[in-house]
Amino acid sequence: GERAARHSFLTPSPFLRIGQLSNVDLNEDIHELETEVPRQRPNEIPHNEKLLSLKYESLDYDNSENQLFLEEERRINHAAFRTVEIKRWVICAMIGILTGLVACFIDIVVENLAGLKYRVVKDNIDKFTAKGGLSFSLLLWATLNASVVMVGSLIVAFIEPVAAGSGIPQIKCYLNGVKIPHVVRLKTLVIKVCGVILSVVGGLAVGKEGPMIHSGSVIAAGISQGRSTSLKRDFKIFEYFRRDTEKRDFVSAGAAAGVSAAFGAPVGGVLFSLEEGASFWNQFLTWRIFFASMISTFTLNSVLSVYHGNAWDLSSPGLINFGRFDSEVGTGIPHVGLWWGVGNRGILGALFNALNYWLTMFRIRYIHRPCLQVVEAMLVAAVTATVGFVMIYCSRDCQPIQGSSVAYPLQLFCADGEYNSMATAFFNTPEKSVVNLFHDPPGSYNPMTLGMFTLMYFFLACWTYGLTVSAGVFIPSLLIGAAWGRLFGISLSYLTKGSIWADPGKYALMGAAAQLGGIVRMTLSLTVIMMEATGNVTYGFPIMLVLMTAKIVGDYFVEGLYDMHIQLQSVPFLHWEAPVTSHSLTAREVMSTPVTCLRRIERVGTVVDILSDTSSNHNGFPVVESNPDTTQVAGLRGLILRSQLIVLLKHKVFVERANLNLVQRRLKLKDFRDAYPRFPPIQSIHVSQDERECMIDLSEFMNPSPYTVPQEASLPRVFKLFRALGLRHLVVVDNRNEVVGMVTRKDLARYRLGKEGLEELSLAQT
Amino acid sequence: GERAARHSFLTPSPFLRIGQLSNVDLNEDIHELETEVPRQRPNEIPHNEKLLSLKYESLDYDNSENQLFLEEERRINHAAFRTVEIKRWVICAMIGILTGLVACFIDIVVENLAGLKYRVVKDNIDKFTAKGGLSFSLLLWATLNASVVMVGSLIVAFIEPVAAGSGIPQIKCYLNGVKIPHVVRLKTLVIKVCGVILSVVGGLAVGKEGPMIHSGSVIAAGISQGRSTSLKRDFKIFEYFRRDTEKRDFVSAGAAAGVSAAFGAPVGGVLFSLEEGASFWNQFLTWRIFFASMISTFTLNSVLSVYHGNAWDLSSPGLINFGRFDSEVGTGIPHVGLWWGVGNRGILGALFNALNYWLTMFRIRYIHRPCLQVVEAMLVAAVTATVGFVMIYCSRDCQPIQGSSVAYPLQLFCADGEYNSMATAFFNTPEKSVVNLFHDPPGSYNPMTLGMFTLMYFFLACWTYGLTVSAGVFIPSLLIGAAWGRLFGISLSYLTKGSIWADPGKYALMGAAAQLGGIVRMTLSLTVIMMEATGNVTYGFPIMLVLMTAKIVGDYFVEGLYDMHIQLQSVPFLHWEAPVTSHSLTAREVMSTPVTCLRRIERVGTVVDILSDTSSNHNGFPVVESNPDTTQVAGLRGLILRSQLIVLLKHKVFVERANLNLVQRRLKLKDFRDAYPRFPPIQSIHVSQDERECMIDLSEFMNPSPYTVPQEASLPRVFKLFRALGLRHLVVVDNRNEVVGMVTRKDLARYRLGKEGLEELSLAQT
Repeated sequence: GERAARHSFLTPSPFLRIGQLSNVDLNEDIHELETEVPRQRPNEIPHNEKLLSLKYESLDYDNSENQLFLEEERRINHAAFRTVEIKRWVICAMIGILTGLVACFIDIVVENLAGLKYRVVKDNIDKFTAKGGLSFSLLLWATLNASVVMVGSLIVAFIEPVAAGSGIPQIKCYLNGVKIPHVVRLKTLVIKVCGVILSVVGGLAVGKEGPMIHSGSVIAAGISQGRSTSLKRDFKIFEYFRRDTEKRDFVSAGAAAGVSAAFGAPVGGVLFSLEEGASFWNQFLTWRIFFASMISTFTLNSVLSVYHGNAWDLSSPGLINFGRFDSEVGTGIPHVGLWWGVGNRGILGALFNALNYWLTMFRIRYIHRPCLQVVEAMLVAAVTATVGFVMIYCSRDCQPIQGSSVAYPLQLFCADGEYNSMATAFFNTPEKSVVNLFHDPPGSYNPMTLGMFTLMYFFLACWTYGLTVSAGVFIPSLLIGAAWGRLFGISLSYLTKGSIWADPGKYALMGAAAQLGGIVRMTLSLTVIMMEATGNVTYGFPIMLVLMTAKIVGDYFVEGLYDMHIQLQSVPFLHWEAPVTSHSLTAREVMSTPVTCLRRIERVGTVVDILSDTSSNHNGFPVVESNPDTTQVAGLRGLILRSQLIVLLKHKVFVERANLNLVQRRLKLKDFRDAYPRFPPIQSIHVSQDERECMIDLSEFMNPSPYTVPQEASLPRVFKLFRALGLRHLVVVDNRNEVVGMVTRKDLARYRLGKEGLEELSLAQT
Repeated sequence: GERAARHSFLTPSPFLRIGQLSNVDLNEDIHELETEVPRQRPNEIPHNEKLLSLKYESLDYDNSENQLFLEEERRINHAAFRTVEIKRWVICAMIGILTGLVACFIDIVVENLAGLKYRVVKDNIDKFTAKGGLSFSLLLWATLNASVVMVGSLIVAFIEPVAAGSGIPQIKCYLNGVKIPHVVRLKTLVIKVCGVILSVVGGLAVGKEGPMIHSGSVIAAGISQGRSTSLKRDFKIFEYFRRDTEKRDFVSAGAAAGVSAAFGAPVGGVLFSLEEGASFWNQFLTWRIFFASMISTFTLNSVLSVYHGNAWDLSSPGLINFGRFDSEVGTGIPHVGLWWGVGNRGILGALFNALNYWLTMFRIRYIHRPCLQVVEAMLVAAVTATVGFVMIYCSRDCQPIQGSSVAYPLQLFCADGEYNSMATAFFNTPEKSVVNLFHDPPGSYNPMTLGMFTLMYFFLACWTYGLTVSAGVFIPSLLIGAAWGRLFGISLSYLTKGSIWADPGKYALMGAAAQLGGIVRMTLSLTVIMMEATGNVTYGFPIMLVLMTAKIVGDYFVEGLYDMHIQLQSVPFLHWEAPVTSHSLTAREVMSTPVTCLRRIERVGTVVDILSDTSSNHNGFPVVESNPDTTQVAGLRGLILRSQLIVLLKHKVFVERANLNLVQRRLKLKDFRDAYPRFPPIQSIHVSQDERECMIDLSEFMNPSPYTVPQEASLPRVFKLFRALGLRHLVVVDNRNEVVGMVTRKDLARYRLGKEGLEELSLAQT
């Protein structure tokens, strides 16, 4: 963590002044502005949502402009900068191509494996339907699913737990500036890709789209660094990009390329990256991100078209394509009311989140052992298959097979030439079910079938999200929404008997938007993604109305799913703005103090001791005027990072005290880049007793112009500076430029707007 | 200007050190890193592109968080902030509705007036074709055009010159933080709307789309302030939004709503605002901007549908609709090459800009009197009519009238039942010509006709842009591009005889994109605008390829049209990033020094004298420790603006020297808001001799936490801070927090990346 003890707890803060005692410790509960008796929680509960974890470190999106860096930049001329720029474009093209290829790989493997599974089960069902004993078919189906999911869950739980879920919350955190360990490693990518294939083939209520965003990000991080630490290969290229700022930009491009490949939505991808990540919009960066997105969807489209044998028609821009909506959407005034009504159903999204919240709390408390996680995943897989089977078995909704596009028509107890309609929804990959709900002609589904399906799938999807498998929530949300949307459309056409309400597919689309919007609460980007996936610009306005209503309704009850999970992980996530009512706080109250400072010419032993002190695990140290003889506080001269000090100690960059006028060993920026991003711990560096007495001159390595704020600056002002520039450390100085405190991410993230006003989260080491 | 004399000229800067003499003055030429003999320019030329004007002031996008402000914010509780948030949404809805209505008004009036004109001329031509004497028709046409344009030009030249052109460069500057006088006033809106109607009706080669962006911005600025200074009406609402930061956000929404109404492109509108203006992306802000855009296109669509009598079909989302492109766009590998080829024609855009550049230089030098400007506009109008007439007269390209959708079919010398094909292009509003070129069936145009039309229209449009009329360049660019694109398509189909190349309309679309992209050089936003106007998402990829190629090719030769005009106006415009090679400069070399500081408790006479000093027309003053007895430089305590001092003096907020412990008069934030944005000049405030001896306490009015940088900070670092936070003043301090200099917009904008490396623009009062 950036720092350990919060001394500011001991000073009277406005929270404490108002009717609260000051016997607070690190595990204290929240302080609210209104007087409230602190709730006592039993000690054995390790988590609650009003904690902020100290275990997450920050990324540094502000370049440390020290002498080495400036010297390098000054050596580079105009033409060389153009080369760097061209390299950026090349990397973005590679990110797009590779992301597209990974998406193709997932799609093709899933299609084949799932096809195989459904054919085996279908043959089995067809066999046993005639001669009885369908329970064997159920057993076969459930066992197949459970075993496939077991493998998928095993690799995630035991090899790389960070590959669980869609990875979208993790990428949001990364782009926000929080270092989530292992999140952009090659190993994570491999596990993610295998995991998502196994989850989808295993018949869970999940999609393969969300994980593409994570996959794209890992690809981007890997390519842009020109090396893989996991494989111990360094291609000695792109060394200029080995720092957090550049890497973040490429990861944005990767995330966009992932969205683009998943939904065939390049503009949506760019907006997703910007909405979730970018704090500073830069025209060139955006344009590059767009380029990567375009290349990604184009690659996917080309490869899949060739694979499907119609090389030039390019009809698969994304992993899921909503198909073509040609009918007029209808945006007259009565429709507007209707879309608003559909959007209100976004409350179902809030319900989904609320249920998932309690489930996640349960999981955090009781299912934290990997074995249990695998068992739960298998259980969910078996239950999903069983529910599907029972629903299909009980359904008496038969539809003529002629003219329908159903992939695996289960006849079961239907007449010859007919198929079981419930099976199109359950006995299919969720992507195909969504498209069927959008485009099947009116009358393909019985309202009873749809109702039962919605209900069951809702609970299954809710139970599934948060399992230790790689899987996304986009498609199940769309599916739930499409089902009740279609149901809504059918009801309307019953009620009004009017022809303009005739097409239930449109309602399925709007329902899907409302459900997804109610769950994830994305705004502009989701509108554009849906619009692009639909391929029809005129659907933009109703989709926007629906999403906006769904978000407003949903926000009234509970947060978005991703934000909720980020909060449950106690991640110090910085939102767009400081809480509106936080003007009453100033930097003085927010900062951590006292700050461990270093002198410009410092004793090596002191540096080692400070770095080794596990109780104050600081990562940034203000450098003050070198005055070894007095203990007087002195003016700020710069800021140096733990990682820089580690590299200096490793390369023995110091001189004996007696020879202070000797020149210490010169380091190059390359030495720092080679160590990036996995700097060794201080314990691994041996410093002898003699060396401890040497002196180290930090002048050319420290950042001589760190950003500072005076103590009187309000929290929103500090927040704005911190967020806009992607800072990791912000030094608080007094009127004489002397260091009085330090503001880090956690100091800002802990203030939150709760229902009652400003809340302060407590910090914990968990 | 923020300051007058540049003392840094006199200190050795790295530019001067390297092979240059230091006898520089304000009119010096650029300094380049390489040694170069300074080119001598004759003194009578007032303008050159390497000047930066001191007459433009900056907007302040950083809140002055003084005690008054903080007290107000602390008084506002959570619920009140929700009210403010709701007000923001209401304002955005109003912006959308009004922008849509203004667009409707323009469209309907233009349609009727232009229809009237074309019918009159057509009847005349039809009459004289039979009996000879067509020169009367020419005279009629030319006179009609010239007189209409004369009125349009007169109101612009004599009433509100800032309404000239499309207004896009001005809005870019406003969003960038440069105060362009009168740019968001009600009077400007009225002149703009009337002007654009008259220009289009006057038959100039202009469009009515660009000005919508300016109109939307003015509407936004007006509504968000809840008053009109021009009309002297204050509705006493939305007072909270009376500051630059909030106003800027609403102007972004207005610009987006304008784009949205112009092209039916709500997402494109949002991206335009972000690409041109926003320096800090905020999710809620973006979502509100999108809302305004959606409302705007929806309003336009509803009203125009009702007007056209088909109330519920909503088929006019924008002022120009490209019509429905249903054919497959073809994105196979050979097509990619082809689109790349089309994009290369973006070089024609560069040619357009280069010609317009010389023309503008000529205009700046010789046509700066309003009368001359009106005469030139009339001349262009007459020439446009004449060229059109001659082209139509000479054309022998007749097409059957049956099945064609031409609005005013001129028979002229064609057989009965046929019409003159050249007339569809010239004898029509440019919007309709564009759509005709996109959608007329193959064979509607003779290649010769298209070639001649392209050539003529290219020069006419180039001559027209920059006239003193309200008019946009989007539509003429699209028209030129569509014409040569169609020509290109026809040639291809001649050459290959292949059926996949058959549809020339697609090539017209791509040509239009290439031409427009080559001229304006917008990137992501233009792609999305074109995509939305086309209504077909699959056209996104080819459009992007074309635009990207056009931009790269164009940038190689000359800047984009808007940037060029901004530069010719010597506006201190801040681009996205500091020049890449500017790491060699530090704040010390960039800043202005010495700085006029005020003491915390200052003599009124001193304040008045400083404000009245016309030679150093500063707008921001660092406030230093109050120590009236010594002249010693003292630590920075805050920053106060000229406008704040003016309000203080106006309200006589000071006490007699003898009664320093008396409390001075309290002001409220409302007093400052009421004066915003037109603060009176210091000359209008009378301060008596006795009052001059009073003391003024600045403590509660100054911003106590201005952003500062140390002298060692590099230019890119300073630039990033300045740009990301939208600053107006940035104080440079030394190690003891003492003020050593001040960085303002002009100090940053004057460094530019030229062909040879870093260039430094000179400053001038013009």
